[in-house]
Amino acid sequence: MIDVYSWATPNGHKVHIMLEECGLEYKVHPINIGAGDQFSEAFLKISPNNKIPAIVDPDGPDGEPISLFESGAILLYLAGKTGKFLPEDVRGKYEALQWLMFQMGGVGPMLGQAHHFRIYAPEKIEYAVNRYTNEAKRLYGVIDTQLSRHEWLAGDQYTIADIATFPWLRSWQNQGVELDEYPNLKRWFNTIAERPAVKRGVEVLASARKPLQDDKAREILFGATQYKRH
Amino acid sequence: MIDVYSWATPNGHKVHIMLEECGLEYKVHPINIGAGDQFSEAFLKISPNNKIPAIVDPDGPDGEPISLFESGAILLYLAGKTGKFLPEDVRGKYEALQWLMFQMGGVGPMLGQAHHFRIYAPEKIEYAVNRYTNEAKRLYGVIDTQLSRHEWLAGDQYTIADIATFPWLRSWQNQGVELDEYPNLKRWFNTIAERPAVKRGVEVLASARKPLQDDKAREILFGATQYKRH
Ligand SMILES: N[C@@H](CCC(=O)N[C@@H](CS)C(=O)NCC(=O)O)C(=O)O
Ligand SMILES: N[C@@H](CCC(=O)N[C@@H](CS)C(=O)NCC(=O)O)C(=O)O
Repeated sequence: MIDVYSWATPNGHKVHIMLEECGLEYKVHPINIGAGDQFSEAFLKISPNNKIPAIVDPDGPDGEPISLFESGAILLYLAGKTGKFLPEDVRGKYEALQWLMFQMGGVGPMLGQAHHFRIYAPEKIEYAVNRYTNEAKRLYGVIDTQLSRHEWLAGDQYTIADIATFPWLRSWQNQGVELDEYPNLKRWFNTIAERPAVKRGVEVLASARKPLQDDKAREILFGATQYKRH
Repeated sequence: MIDVYSWATPNGHKVHIMLEECGLEYKVHPINIGAGDQFSEAFLKISPNNKIPAIVDPDGPDGEPISLFESGAILLYLAGKTGKFLPEDVRGKYEALQWLMFQMGGVGPMLGQAHHFRIYAPEKIEYAVNRYTNEAKRLYGVIDTQLSRHEWLAGDQYTIADIATFPWLRSWQNQGVELDEYPNLKRWFNTIAERPAVKRGVEVLASARKPLQDDKAREILFGATQYKRH
């Protein structure tokens, strides 16, 4: 039984979907990042970057427990553990890795900035809104082009690159993007959304999370640097 | 002989350093991202996200050429090819992967935004400057804490997690950070900077790159969404 420390955000959903796709047993421990749970001593021990998701697998590589943070590393670990959703041939593996890295280094952080400046920031800053909305559109264009040539992001198999990317694109409206302008992406998106494991994964913790409604939550997430140094 | 399509930026330097550390032969093809080289048809074929670095290894996994983009995937590929700088035991491998992902998903993109708003953006936007300067300090704090407990980022071995992170911290002054406030990080930084392979790596293309001095380069990199859709 894998312990998952998480919240109903795109980076959390990646791991929830993967666990469902792999049919692994897991127990979810909510880390309410709007309430500051990510700064507790206990959580920082397994996730020193104070971010969800993190896991503890009591049945680690050498039979001893292993704890891991960073969604991309967790996806790779679960793929390694189960032999699923990462091609076994060396070429296929690195091609999937490059699209996983594209999600980790581009899609995630940049769409995250789009959410921040379009939705959460207390001031509307036109320059920043445009910067990240343009970048969102560029990234959707890159994905759409790739999916005009291949069924899945990394080629002809559904992999952790798809699992990592999908949850970020569910919030396309918050990113100033029109899904209809990216027909290949839309085809891929709808196919993934229909997978039973994905449907279960995106429901994990969904009812626990409420919109960031108060100033305290904003302060914790975006303002309080004293919380964030340790 | 590996073909490297790159530029003298932190993400480029990661790969240059890794090639030097591994003692692999390579040929550098400059992609001047200030002049728009990243949007050429030929480059987009190997790097559809229009970003450096990318490589083509004529001696790929199955004896056929392989091309790869995303620095994190390239580092993993070169580690796999040479058996270097990634622990062989499963636990050690995933612990290194989580710190590599921390660099790819956090250190790189967020320090990149700090550079943008502190140096390159045409307007000085206080909110954004503070946001990314605070995030830079937070990230340096996370790294410093980890290096107070371990010699290297991923534990007791120099790995691709260190190689990926080091080039980003060379520009600490541009990020509003004081290196002296992070003594463990500083110890680690200076140790890496002294490695002969690192000294050679950071010189690659260094003389070709000039500061972004003109509006045309800014427009290409930060403004021209029409260039960026393809
Ligand atoms: N690169 C990390 C990013 C994780 C991340 O950004 N998590 C957010 C929620 S989606 C978080 O925990 N934020 C809380 C905070 O930064 O204080 C990953 O992929 O796991
Ligand atoms: N996640 C990518 C990021 C690469 C990246 O941001 N490259 C920059 C230079 S450091 C670039 O090529 N920019 C040109 C552009 O965006 O047009 C990686 O790690 O390879």
